[in-house]
Amino acid sequence: MDLAPIITASRGDAPMDLLLTNARIVNVFSGRVIEGCIAVKDGYVAGFGRYDAGETMDLKGRYVSPGFIDSHVHIESAMVCVSEFARAVAPHGTTTVVADPHEIANVLGTAGIDYMLRSTQGQPMDCLLALPSCVPATEMETAGARLTAGDLEAFINHPRVVALAEMMNYPGVIYTDAAVMAKLTMARTHRRTMDGHAPGLSGRRLFAYTSAGIASDHECTRAEEAFEKLELGIHIMVREGTCARNLDALFPVINRDTWRRMMWCTDDRHPHDILSDGHVDAVIRKAVARGLDPLTAIRMGTINPADYFGIRDAGAIAPGRKANLVVFSNLADIQAEQVFYMGRPVAENGSMLPTVQRPDPAAVPPSMRLDPHGLDFSIPASGRRMRVIGAIADQVVTRCEIMDVSEKDGLAVVDVARDLIKMAVVERYTGQARTGKGFVTGLGLKHGAIASSVAHDSHNIIVAGVTDTDMQVAAAAVVKMGGGLSAASDGRILASLPLPVGGLMSDQPMETVRRQMAAMITAAGKLGAALPDPFMTLGFLALPVIPELKLTDKGLVDVTRFKIVSLFL
Amino acid sequence: MDLAPIITASRGDAPMDLLLTNARIVNVFSGRVIEGCIAVKDGYVAGFGRYDAGETMDLKGRYVSPGFIDSHVHIESAMVCVSEFARAVAPHGTTTVVADPHEIANVLGTAGIDYMLRSTQGQPMDCLLALPSCVPATEMETAGARLTAGDLEAFINHPRVVALAEMMNYPGVIYTDAAVMAKLTMARTHRRTMDGHAPGLSGRRLFAYTSAGIASDHECTRAEEAFEKLELGIHIMVREGTCARNLDALFPVINRDTWRRMMWCTDDRHPHDILSDGHVDAVIRKAVARGLDPLTAIRMGTINPADYFGIRDAGAIAPGRKANLVVFSNLADIQAEQVFYMGRPVAENGSMLPTVQRPDPAAVPPSMRLDPHGLDFSIPASGRRMRVIGAIADQVVTRCEIMDVSEKDGLAVVDVARDLIKMAVVERYTGQARTGKGFVTGLGLKHGAIASSVAHDSHNIIVAGVTDTDMQVAAAAVVKMGGGLSAASDGRILASLPLPVGGLMSDQPMETVRRQMAAMITAAGKLGAALPDPFMTLGFLALPVIPELKLTDKGLVDVTRFKIVSLFL
Repeated sequence: MDLAPIITASRGDAPMDLLLTNARIVNVFSGRVIEGCIAVKDGYVAGFGRYDAGETMDLKGRYVSPGFIDSHVHIESAMVCVSEFARAVAPHGTTTVVADPHEIANVLGTAGIDYMLRSTQGQPMDCLLALPSCVPATEMETAGARLTAGDLEAFINHPRVVALAEMMNYPGVIYTDAAVMAKLTMARTHRRTMDGHAPGLSGRRLFAYTSAGIASDHECTRAEEAFEKLELGIHIMVREGTCARNLDALFPVINRDTWRRMMWCTDDRHPHDILSDGHVDAVIRKAVARGLDPLTAIRMGTINPADYFGIRDAGAIAPGRKANLVVFSNLADIQAEQVFYMGRPVAENGSMLPTVQRPDPAAVPPSMRLDPHGLDFSIPASGRRMRVIGAIADQVVTRCEIMDVSEKDGLAVVDVARDLIKMAVVERYTGQARTGKGFVTGLGLKHGAIASSVAHDSHNIIVAGVTDTDMQVAAAAVVKMGGGLSAASDGRILASLPLPVGGLMSDQPMETVRRQMAAMITAAGKLGAALPDPFMTLGFLALPVIPELKLTDKGLVDVTRFKIVSLFL
Repeated sequence: MDLAPIITASRGDAPMDLLLTNARIVNVFSGRVIEGCIAVKDGYVAGFGRYDAGETMDLKGRYVSPGFIDSHVHIESAMVCVSEFARAVAPHGTTTVVADPHEIANVLGTAGIDYMLRSTQGQPMDCLLALPSCVPATEMETAGARLTAGDLEAFINHPRVVALAEMMNYPGVIYTDAAVMAKLTMARTHRRTMDGHAPGLSGRRLFAYTSAGIASDHECTRAEEAFEKLELGIHIMVREGTCARNLDALFPVINRDTWRRMMWCTDDRHPHDILSDGHVDAVIRKAVARGLDPLTAIRMGTINPADYFGIRDAGAIAPGRKANLVVFSNLADIQAEQVFYMGRPVAENGSMLPTVQRPDPAAVPPSMRLDPHGLDFSIPASGRRMRVIGAIADQVVTRCEIMDVSEKDGLAVVDVARDLIKMAVVERYTGQARTGKGFVTGLGLKHGAIASSVAHDSHNIIVAGVTDTDMQVAAAAVVKMGGGLSAASDGRILASLPLPVGGLMSDQPMETVRRQMAAMITAAGKLGAALPDPFMTLGFLALPVIPELKLTDKGLVDVTRFKIVSLFL
């Protein structure tokens, strides 16, 4: 970039583009609010006070904060592509996110990272990337890719790549797995920040994890846990997502000595929460309502993540930083009334301005290499008792239940009366369609089937149902859409939600996806599903890093023992 | 480096090398002091609490702080090479310095940086480098080198290079000089910190400087100045050097909101001050004596510079960071009783341990390309009145005096009665020996001459004297030593101090240099020198960036007008 025009305007020898007058400017460096004018040139803050400018805007005494930064987010969890994600969160004042494309990388590998880099270009916000460190998540499933340190290194110097993303494989760190260490060494060599993910880790195992140079954690659920980590130098990302909300628990850790090493993140926020509650602004509001000084709450959502990641051009209203600004009226209840990205108004009163165009969508490679015909979901009954996944409402953990087999014609079959439903995970990447089969209880389906290509972390096709036919119909619909969610009954599709981008993301606006999602839940409810969000629950039944019993394309996984186990005892 | 043995010890599966028990551990992350044990493996802190260890050391309840970090220092100002500098400051608890080899780079160019990188290897402290951004300092003098952005880029990925050093050419930034912008762009592209140097800069000119991405300043002399810069995002390095001491003036700026963006530096500390007062420890003691909370004072000398420069392996006592430790008994008066570098005791009670060997000295290229014979210091009298440099005790600024010429045989000559002494700057790099000549008042010499190869920033040979013969003898002695200081009288050398390393640094211990320096000042005093340190004053008479009148090999410089002017009016 050419700094000369900005510097020239700064010193007063050329007019500014924009002067925002009568502003109450939040200074994140001193913690003061300063009344004055902000001068903008070529998208950057270039000075304060009275300057000649092409355009002047009177803020009428309202507050101006730097745009908010989400320090850790999986955009895929919002089920929309980057363009639509940006259009949903920018009106909430978010102007920078550090996104970990972990999900799409599990599906498409380097092509997925490349897709995210291409689609983060030209957005009305800065979408920076942390490189997914754990693809695949485990060896007990088939993912779409395997990313080595060398694969990641090809991206490390991209201007929008700022870190190695959450190192979830903490046993791999603690036991110095060679592939894990190679990724850490790569990031260290390039002097990039290494994000962590170590729920509940403590004492010597935490020392070992920290010895590797991991610098953050967003998985703390208890104040003592967060404080222990903070005192080891680990930056604490306080998470307020859809499934996990940790602010209340971690609030006592925030004080005048610690706040500087803490920041906000959303991790996973679903469309409904973003649209109805908000994004980083919602976390700030909640913290302020909880009693946190608003300036501290703002600093934890601006300069703290900027400093942590070494983002030098955002996180503050100061010369040399992008004019990413949030205008609001009330420090005690921050609601973005105007949002500027690089000096340009992009949103007002919760909506994107019509002037903000979507950039051309980036091409996305197909991810569905699967013939849906001939999928066989039958399970020969080779025992009397079996391991059954016990789904729990609004939880990603499951129980391992031992139940009697219902047998018919030598096959293990569904038993609706006992809420014993069949389940399968079909590998979708190699054309082999390897299928892991089992049973689940707790979903509550009475007839039909539901299927999804959102099945953490490998995102194979997961399907649960009462009849093999409906399971086949539901799975085939997912394949046909190139990925998505479906509900089938009596051999027909009741409802479907296409997620053509890697089988994870829609190409439609978030509002559309929210409506479609509501229709999917209604359809599942008609099939008898008893959970608030059966597709979310379903999506975690294949995640073999969260206890207790999960199903992948390779079979049932006893997560506690971290091994594949047989269905029948 | 291989992290596996450290991680293995951290998790408890292999013994530690060292366990420090009964310690009061300063935690810079939380601002607490915690009683406990520190476990060390392979030079790194690897855990806390009881571990098996090869060696155990009882600290008997004493405090342990992370080793101190000097955020900005020119080692050349200590007049010793890196080995001896390290041996002088490590006993004071300094375990990391960020050195700007600006002086040696002006003499030797990239060979000077290369020499510093080689000689910083294997020291009992971490000597990190910031790359000198302004070589030469101006176009009005002949330096030994000219460093372009490309020259600097060759070093930017060296593991011990952490920043672009102080951008002194702030007019070059503000007026977007192409060569200056190229250096900033280079540093920005590599995501390196850019240090600043902008004494007194304020308002729009400061906005322009900040727009370029400059991230620190160590030249603040007033609280208002420092606070203005801090509110623009510039980190404030509070300097306590030999010539400039700013802590008292800047003390009011340090508060609970600002301290996190402030740190200590020494910039230039001469041997006497280091040996008798101390180093970063002296700054911390002074700040604490002034009323600053000791934990804050320590944090400003440890984690703050570490975070600022992105030094991830120092600045705190935590797993993943080097076991650089300072042991002391009194928080209110921190005196290093034991110093550890990478888990190894290196100093006790103010002295290096005899076990600490000097690494082999790095070879240094010669820098004296000059035939001392035939130097002509005569000045034809081509006017009646002339510009005379007015030296001021203990100041780097001078006055421009207008005085009547003393004429003899058509030459302008010395007039001791009016304290009008002859002065010359002889270029020492090209073999041309271009000589700038003039007069100085205020030095007070009554007979003889003094000469030095320490003449900021180009470090040509500067000589002042009463007779041309003694000037020739003194200059020839400097050349013969390969650089240094000398005093001559009646055609003989009275005293000399060899500085064979670039004409800037001795190869002797700092204590020796202090004694030699004292002898030099005594000798100069015998010649009539009236200033406390005539060599220091002499060394700044050639610095054409500090007002008012200076002399370089190209002639007299009117610094206010930033141009060469004639001697005679």
